[in-house]
Amino acid sequence: MGYIDELGTAAKKAESAMTGIGTDKKNAALKLIADRLIENKDTIIKENKRDIENAKVNGMTEALIDRLTLTDARIEGMSEGVRQVIALKDPINEIIGGEELPNGLKVEKIRVPLGVIGIIFESRPNVTVDAAALCLKSGNICILRGGSDAIYSNKCLTSIMRSALSEAGLPEDAIQLVADTSRAVAGDMMKADKYIDVLIPRGGGGLIRSVRQNSTIPVIQTGEGNCHVYVDRFADIDKAIEITDNAKTQRPSVCNAIETILVHKAVAEQFYTALNKKWNGRVKIYGDEICAKFMDIDRAATEEDYATEFNDYVIAAKTVSSIDEAIEHINRYGTKHSECIVTINLDNALKFQKHIDAAAVYVNASTRFTDGFEFGLGAEIGISTQKLHARGPMGLKELTTYKYLITGNGQIR
Amino acid sequence: MGYIDELGTAAKKAESAMTGIGTDKKNAALKLIADRLIENKDTIIKENKRDIENAKVNGMTEALIDRLTLTDARIEGMSEGVRQVIALKDPINEIIGGEELPNGLKVEKIRVPLGVIGIIFESRPNVTVDAAALCLKSGNICILRGGSDAIYSNKCLTSIMRSALSEAGLPEDAIQLVADTSRAVAGDMMKADKYIDVLIPRGGGGLIRSVRQNSTIPVIQTGEGNCHVYVDRFADIDKAIEITDNAKTQRPSVCNAIETILVHKAVAEQFYTALNKKWNGRVKIYGDEICAKFMDIDRAATEEDYATEFNDYVIAAKTVSSIDEAIEHINRYGTKHSECIVTINLDNALKFQKHIDAAAVYVNASTRFTDGFEFGLGAEIGISTQKLHARGPMGLKELTTYKYLITGNGQIR
Repeated sequence: MGYIDELGTAAKKAESAMTGIGTDKKNAALKLIADRLIENKDTIIKENKRDIENAKVNGMTEALIDRLTLTDARIEGMSEGVRQVIALKDPINEIIGGEELPNGLKVEKIRVPLGVIGIIFESRPNVTVDAAALCLKSGNICILRGGSDAIYSNKCLTSIMRSALSEAGLPEDAIQLVADTSRAVAGDMMKADKYIDVLIPRGGGGLIRSVRQNSTIPVIQTGEGNCHVYVDRFADIDKAIEITDNAKTQRPSVCNAIETILVHKAVAEQFYTALNKKWNGRVKIYGDEICAKFMDIDRAATEEDYATEFNDYVIAAKTVSSIDEAIEHINRYGTKHSECIVTINLDNALKFQKHIDAAAVYVNASTRFTDGFEFGLGAEIGISTQKLHARGPMGLKELTTYKYLITGNGQIR
Repeated sequence: MGYIDELGTAAKKAESAMTGIGTDKKNAALKLIADRLIENKDTIIKENKRDIENAKVNGMTEALIDRLTLTDARIEGMSEGVRQVIALKDPINEIIGGEELPNGLKVEKIRVPLGVIGIIFESRPNVTVDAAALCLKSGNICILRGGSDAIYSNKCLTSIMRSALSEAGLPEDAIQLVADTSRAVAGDMMKADKYIDVLIPRGGGGLIRSVRQNSTIPVIQTGEGNCHVYVDRFADIDKAIEITDNAKTQRPSVCNAIETILVHKAVAEQFYTALNKKWNGRVKIYGDEICAKFMDIDRAATEEDYATEFNDYVIAAKTVSSIDEAIEHINRYGTKHSECIVTINLDNALKFQKHIDAAAVYVNASTRFTDGFEFGLGAEIGISTQKLHARGPMGLKELTTYKYLITGNGQIR
């Protein structure tokens, strides 16, 4: 039996043991997890240091080492995150529909866990705890496959969480880590449809494409964000500047930050001039000819730029002749994540919202709001950019499915 | 550019043209389709005869030839099916949630089409019309890949539907047929994630597994049904007999018919004896030792029988010592479709409904009710046996996704 079969078999057993476990017991386990993370801070930091030392030897960039590093404050943040999950409403067993059929059959549609969720993610160890807490609260079993760069941190964190589960009287295999981070085992995991109901890759485009190409398990793809602001000819230019600045620079590394601005030619001079003044060289600009007249561009924009998620203080700019051209550009290059129009014209606002194919379509607001907390869903497991199952921020409800319960007294067809 | 690229490109264009098309226009097109099917009955039957002649040459079984054959009555049935879809409520643009956030942003969650749906199915030509009508009503574009055995029928039917679309002022490429039924093109279709948002295989286990193994497009698997009736020790035996008989013999070829009966040992003699009398040899039985004492079994049941969807007047039987054994058996061998317990004991009824992992879990009623019409969803595109996106009968709503529309007046984060 292969390694993934072992984890999978244990997960199916845990799934069976978790069926029917009530909210109180799940919350008690989450509270123990939150407490034990704090109590074991020193151990976590010690194990995290091993990862950091390896990362330095392997020549990891400062930015990535920063993402990997756990501090007292960050561990407190993780623990606080778990406490926030306790406060969220348990989605399981909600009756989401139903009726009595003419033949007297009572049909109820109730919310149930997805089952076993596989999560493949890159090197941020806080994902390990976030994802496990959300899966636990929604009654799901998780099999977590983090990056090899964070293996000591992840082993330590899952070991603490598993002890807390045992202590709370729940199966420790409800949270499992793929400790063998080889490519071969990752490949096996993507084919483990016998055990895993849903696979969620969290990370860059390369990871997501690889999972989609190789997985035989239903996948929810998350987090690719080539987002746009379109400044309409009827835009309030001051607001357009504020929204563009916020959507690009408030946190450029995240998926809901924008990568390209599209500007209607009628307001190009006014908008580009004002933006140039606002940014004053802080953001590198790849622009077209019209943009170059009014902004200090770095170089001319290429087709490839329009397809690129820079995740940095870099933006592409294109001047368009109509809202239709903007919509076409976005539907062609966008990743169906978050898109924005700035306009005071109602027809154009409605047209943009109808024709843009994306999870979140904004009028006069920053794309940075596409986020589970901002949308009031609580913590999120990711932002789905596919259309099947869930779209946009995925909270607890998006980690569930439903089943029909039908009760009769002998009905036949 | 390959053949599937051509269809896909045309589909994306049609998708764009269909965005914002209202219910009236879609219904008008459906009405034209229904009318033109009747008017072109003779042509359809002529083309269908070509398929039937080929089928005879190829040695197709009588049962399959019957499934393939179109008659006046069957064409009228297809046309009537389209009219029923007209009567269903259009799911698109329903506001399914939303609120005003504390910062004044208005968030609406609205129902939108999935986009381009690929459907791969076997030789029943009525699926061609059913599927196209459901996709059209829900604003989706469909690319239909039927079996080579029905190619002349399918070409004729899609050609009629496409003309009706044009006549109604809608893009004819909203309904497309994969006219090249080679394996290579089917393979290309499964990888066409650039154009197709969702792939739905309709057919046997082999087709579904092949699609799941090879597709890079999100898949909804439908229609595999290894379903069970469990006769509890607290069963009303008369009802258990009626339900078992109905679930097995009312239409054995369909996915919601049962394949195995599980019988509590305390009622084994009474139940088996009564069922033996009822069936009187009409159903072939593969039973265990206890069953063999009271029924005329064909042979002993094997492990493989428990995993088999007979789709025929054949059933496997197993005597169990407890409800837990029954639940374990079902969760092990079942396909998460429809499962039934016959009992008058409330605790056991609740336990069965909680612990069985299936789309529809019945107490004291035939599994044959798992059906879009029976559940009040109207026509169905299939019965999902996966947990992602939709579970059980899939009607119009299950062919949609949602998007968030966010409207503000300059909000930034």
